[in-house]
Amino acid sequence: MTKGEGIRHMLDRAGDKWTLLVIGALEHGPVRYTELQRSIEGISQRMLTHTLRQLQRDGLVVRDAYAEVPPRVEYALTDLGTSLLDAVTVLIDWAGSHHDEICANRVGYDAAREE
Amino acid sequence: MTKGEGIRHMLDRAGDKWTLLVIGALEHGPVRYTELQRSIEGISQRMLTHTLRQLQRDGLVVRDAYAEVPPRVEYALTDLGTSLLDAVTVLIDWAGSHHDEICANRVGYDAAREE
Repeated sequence: MTKGEGIRHMLDRAGDKWTLLVIGALEHGPVRYTELQRSIEGISQRMLTHTLRQLQRDGLVVRDAYAEVPPRVEYALTDLGTSLLDAVTVLIDWAGSHHDEICANRVGYDAAREE
Repeated sequence: MTKGEGIRHMLDRAGDKWTLLVIGALEHGPVRYTELQRSIEGISQRMLTHTLRQLQRDGLVVRDAYAEVPPRVEYALTDLGTSLLDAVTVLIDWAGSHHDEICANRVGYDAAREE
């Protein structure tokens, strides 16, 4: 894999919607699995588990298990994960604040093509 | 589609690898199609055409055709496209500077699971 391919692969990972939303949800510190699932609208258990495992493998998130009864498991950003947070928060805020404008642009683009 | 779904859809679009790389390639002003294709390693003609059409539909890019011989066509960011540039450049720079670190993390993660 060339470095260019590696970076493109990295962008695929970093730009993935669920990756962005999980990193955004960990912005303010460690969060339990069930809290994460509740705070990310539309994510399935399977997708959350997969995304968290990928993030751990990439070194962006750590999983802390506490030997309590019942057992407590929390996920938190590493320094590497935190370094991605700026771009993630800007992208999520951008999507939120330009959502309506983009939807209107699409309606206009499609209408112009039907004429 | 709820607003949450809409924003997730927007993130899918904005976080897409080829979308990020095309927006990044338009950072310094209008660029011709062939130049774009040359500057984005690994992108096929079909993917570049598709990505440019999506970006035009979203209102992030405009296509300017000049009635010259031979005809000249350039693509440029709109104000909306430029507003996404910050997040895109940070994400591309992040992927480039952390590529090796993430690859090493993955090797370590996989090795720990084989033990």
